[in-house]
Amino acid sequence: MERVKESESEPASSSSSSAGKLEEEVGRVMDQARELHESGASLLWKISNEEQSLRQKAISLESSIRRVRSSINSLISKKLLDPEFARKLEEDLQRASSILTDGEAAAFLPAEAQGRFLRMFLGPINVRASRKEVQLKVKEEYNSYRDRTAFLFLLFPLTLLILKSWIWEGCLPAFPVQLYEAWLLFLYTGLAMRENILRANGSDIRPWWIYHHYCAMLMALVSLTWEIKRQPNCAQKQRGVELFLQWAMMQGVAMLLQNRYQRQRLYTRIALGKANRMDVVWGETSGVDGQLWVLCPILFAMQGFEAYVGLLLLKTAFVGVVTEWQVICCGILLVLMAVGNFINTIQTLMTKSRFKAKMKRSKSKPELD
Amino acid sequence: MERVKESESEPASSSSSSAGKLEEEVGRVMDQARELHESGASLLWKISNEEQSLRQKAISLESSIRRVRSSINSLISKKLLDPEFARKLEEDLQRASSILTDGEAAAFLPAEAQGRFLRMFLGPINVRASRKEVQLKVKEEYNSYRDRTAFLFLLFPLTLLILKSWIWEGCLPAFPVQLYEAWLLFLYTGLAMRENILRANGSDIRPWWIYHHYCAMLMALVSLTWEIKRQPNCAQKQRGVELFLQWAMMQGVAMLLQNRYQRQRLYTRIALGKANRMDVVWGETSGVDGQLWVLCPILFAMQGFEAYVGLLLLKTAFVGVVTEWQVICCGILLVLMAVGNFINTIQTLMTKSRFKAKMKRSKSKPELD
Repeated sequence: MERVKESESEPASSSSSSAGKLEEEVGRVMDQARELHESGASLLWKISNEEQSLRQKAISLESSIRRVRSSINSLISKKLLDPEFARKLEEDLQRASSILTDGEAAAFLPAEAQGRFLRMFLGPINVRASRKEVQLKVKEEYNSYRDRTAFLFLLFPLTLLILKSWIWEGCLPAFPVQLYEAWLLFLYTGLAMRENILRANGSDIRPWWIYHHYCAMLMALVSLTWEIKRQPNCAQKQRGVELFLQWAMMQGVAMLLQNRYQRQRLYTRIALGKANRMDVVWGETSGVDGQLWVLCPILFAMQGFEAYVGLLLLKTAFVGVVTEWQVICCGILLVLMAVGNFINTIQTLMTKSRFKAKMKRSKSKPELD
Repeated sequence: MERVKESESEPASSSSSSAGKLEEEVGRVMDQARELHESGASLLWKISNEEQSLRQKAISLESSIRRVRSSINSLISKKLLDPEFARKLEEDLQRASSILTDGEAAAFLPAEAQGRFLRMFLGPINVRASRKEVQLKVKEEYNSYRDRTAFLFLLFPLTLLILKSWIWEGCLPAFPVQLYEAWLLFLYTGLAMRENILRANGSDIRPWWIYHHYCAMLMALVSLTWEIKRQPNCAQKQRGVELFLQWAMMQGVAMLLQNRYQRQRLYTRIALGKANRMDVVWGETSGVDGQLWVLCPILFAMQGFEAYVGLLLLKTAFVGVVTEWQVICCGILLVLMAVGNFINTIQTLMTKSRFKAKMKRSKSKPELD
């Protein structure tokens, strides 16, 4: 009605017809928007219903697996089950549980709580990928991030130490060291976030390695506030920084070796059906044993050196050469990380040897019979 | 077969029957796992198909809206359309576009690229929520995070300044200031992440405010490496820090006012159907005009003070009182942020007044006729 009235005051009749066409088009757009809104809402509702039912099934299957496993174990302990047969049942259960946690159904298992760290930085956003291929992409990217950073971890302090004796005449300038410390802070924050995200996506990464990165973040932050002393006698005053850089280089080498070792072991374990592809392997089991005997001494040496640097810092603080609180704080953090790393490496090796003994026992049984 | 052979060597027949039951149960668990895997895969496949079709529709609707809008504009510019009628059509289009971007169908619009910042810290994880209610929860949490931090923003430097003149006798100790700087770094990192996440979830936040937080992150990082000078003459040496703390307090007040203003305006705009509930309002339009005339002078005063602190820092650096690179860097960053904030506030006000003029014109037209 109104449009007709208005179009009377317009000069040409062509404007009235184009206005009419426009009004029609706007009406059509409006209808389409409403329709799309409704079908979107109904799809989301349908998805949430079906997901709910699959979630129920996945949870009940998970508890069945746990129940059957515990009854196998109780029969074994009562010696009512042939060990060879029990091992076969366990392998089947393991396969079922792999299908559940590594297959498409994994998206419907209840999510791990995301933890305070991610909530603090990101708010309540969900970082869990529902598609398995996305989860695997996240895992792959974590590995390649580790590779890239391990390389820089080696290169950065090495460059600083070379330049120190070559150009800077034994005296590190503050800026490059602080740049390095800022990079460390950024790096450890990124690692801690990625590992929390992996955990939310079903990886079994040991909590200690995440705590370790929180400690490292704190240390990088504290070291940023730590004044880099200049001439005179900077060689003596910068002893702590120099030791720290040497330790960082060793860590770079160890990280490169670890990454190599982990990838190979992960592929072996996946092939054996023992690992979920989301796992970060620091833990038990089979495979490339040879490399572990190269890795272990390096890891222990590094942990020893870490504790040594920490204790040295604490000594300088208490003897009174340098009395800044940063020295004490970094010293304590280094010792803490060294002890934690040591305990976790030992636990890892123990689980591994226990598992191997079990495997050996069950394998050698038939021959003894 | 094998099981039977083994059970012959077992002492009791009860063990054989329980072994049989166990084997059955393991088989059942295995079947359930396979079934669940298949139904999970088929659900995910179905979802991805239906999403694909809705996505196509949403994209085509979006382009229809754009097309109709541009033809309305071209008819207006040729004076072939009654302005009153055009305004009505535009309002309908706006409503359709609100349904599209604010309704359930929004989940199917193509996602914004997540940007380098999030990728750097989080890897390739998707931070986009598919359900509208989750997106709104993220938005709400962002607002309450801003409220909480604005309060601390006021309280933290105020405490430092009070303690300085009350207990510390005019001389700030290094540790509390560095703690404050570390908190700023954490805060700005969190804000930058949340804003990037909001953007990925369809908010129209101005890119400058995110860049502003990158600058602030950098400044907090640089200020951490900045040695806090002690006695003698600390009052003179710490002039920069003191100015910075005063500016931070002003920023706290401004943030509190802004938050209040934004929330009210957002609710008004949602009620008028002009805003998507994901928007962070710094931009154009209607509503609580009275408050803007309180907010604007405070914002301009703050920006002026920010530039003043920056220039003062640069002056001390170039006159040669303090020659640390951190002073120059912080000075440049402060001036940069002040200028950027000023330009963005002006742009915001201009868009607003242009919009108001347009509204006034179209409203006053019928009376003139």
